[in-house]
Amino acid sequence: MKIGIFDSGVGGLTVLKALTQTLPEANFVYFGDTARFPYGTKSPETLIKHSIEIVLFLLEKNVDAIVIACNTATSAALPVLQKHFSIPIIGIIEPAIEQALSSPNARCIGIIGTNALVRSQVYQQRLSQIPQLVYWTKACPLLIAAIEENFDNTSIKQALLDHYLKPLKQKKIDTLILACTHFPLIKEEIQNAVGSNVRLIDPSYACAEKVKNLSLSPTDKKTPIEFYVSDDPKRFKQAGKAFLGIPIQKVQIIH
Amino acid sequence: MKIGIFDSGVGGLTVLKALTQTLPEANFVYFGDTARFPYGTKSPETLIKHSIEIVLFLLEKNVDAIVIACNTATSAALPVLQKHFSIPIIGIIEPAIEQALSSPNARCIGIIGTNALVRSQVYQQRLSQIPQLVYWTKACPLLIAAIEENFDNTSIKQALLDHYLKPLKQKKIDTLILACTHFPLIKEEIQNAVGSNVRLIDPSYACAEKVKNLSLSPTDKKTPIEFYVSDDPKRFKQAGKAFLGIPIQKVQIIH
Repeated sequence: MKIGIFDSGVGGLTVLKALTQTLPEANFVYFGDTARFPYGTKSPETLIKHSIEIVLFLLEKNVDAIVIACNTATSAALPVLQKHFSIPIIGIIEPAIEQALSSPNARCIGIIGTNALVRSQVYQQRLSQIPQLVYWTKACPLLIAAIEENFDNTSIKQALLDHYLKPLKQKKIDTLILACTHFPLIKEEIQNAVGSNVRLIDPSYACAEKVKNLSLSPTDKKTPIEFYVSDDPKRFKQAGKAFLGIPIQKVQIIH
Repeated sequence: MKIGIFDSGVGGLTVLKALTQTLPEANFVYFGDTARFPYGTKSPETLIKHSIEIVLFLLEKNVDAIVIACNTATSAALPVLQKHFSIPIIGIIEPAIEQALSSPNARCIGIIGTNALVRSQVYQQRLSQIPQLVYWTKACPLLIAAIEENFDNTSIKQALLDHYLKPLKQKKIDTLILACTHFPLIKEEIQNAVGSNVRLIDPSYACAEKVKNLSLSPTDKKTPIEFYVSDDPKRFKQAGKAFLGIPIQKVQIIH
């Protein structure tokens, strides 16, 4: 099996990492739309157009399934993509929600992500259908920027964690969905900030499990991960290392 | 006279503000390339392509001069644009440098901006030509993000100001160039952080003076500022208000 993954940049590499760990026998193609990063400032119409282009590109690479690693793109484009294309397309949102709701103790769920994700209301609309469930969203733009920057001032980072997560702790959440691809990089710090009794949901692993359940046919021959970007392969390589956890060798640019 | 201004988003509205104050009799067309924001993550080749498209669009609007309000686009595209087009095109960088150097007391200059600007080396290359001048650059990505977000946690904002500006204060800078369109919004806080003896250079006003010196022919009839964006006019209106200082009425989208 060959799996295509796309994101607006390097963030989706945390999802690729979860996929490689969950499906070690699979082959992967990753597309980072770095020329059009970030997706959070773009309209749903624009994101649907971009996503269709990328799906067509990944289909050319003969993938058997496609993962949208980006929350904003999933929220904007997943229904249209699933309608237009026959290939299985997995978003990053529904698997996380399903995993969160899989525990009978989930009564009060927190969701942290970008401004765009919170504005999109996609988690809120889905969770509002669950009876007797309380949920709170919190956009954490500066915390996400700090991860993106690999910001090294510990006290400011801690202050940002407190600023964004204390309000959720005060709401007594029992579950926290890390609804931005960047959060897995500071999972421990987030756990410390909200307390050890809160169950963290990492959508990247939830999503990888979903792909595993597709039971796609095994790979004939294991090949290196293919990386494509729409701009600046060098910066993608540098920044991507932290997100993927291993160095990235070859990155090709696609216009 | 009619002046075209472009930027990757709302930031350039601080430059438009300076232009409207310096040239109250002029007409203006503003283009915010919100679909492709931010420019900082894009390669010079990509930025040259985008800038040429935008210049052609502004020429259709019959402008007499064009201002590149974005530091990154100025750094990447200004020389090519000035070579290709006959219309006067003013970047945001050179006027700021000229104003900084206009004081005989400028011996140690600080420059703050985005990662992309610092990486581009554009200020460094220009200032290294001046004998006996010392300069220090500091990328302030989280401070810029805090301004963009209108982040309201005063103590974290102060900690970010200290984190980024104290190293420059320790270098005993006498001049500080605010080389990002967002900084005019927190000019006072920056002045406090570096000390009142440091001369702040706001490139937007330096740039507006440069346009004034073109001595373009007067306007026949004053018309409202025209605003165009490449994505999401609603968000541009909302976010733009803080940057322009007055509400923005009509924004048209251009694909």
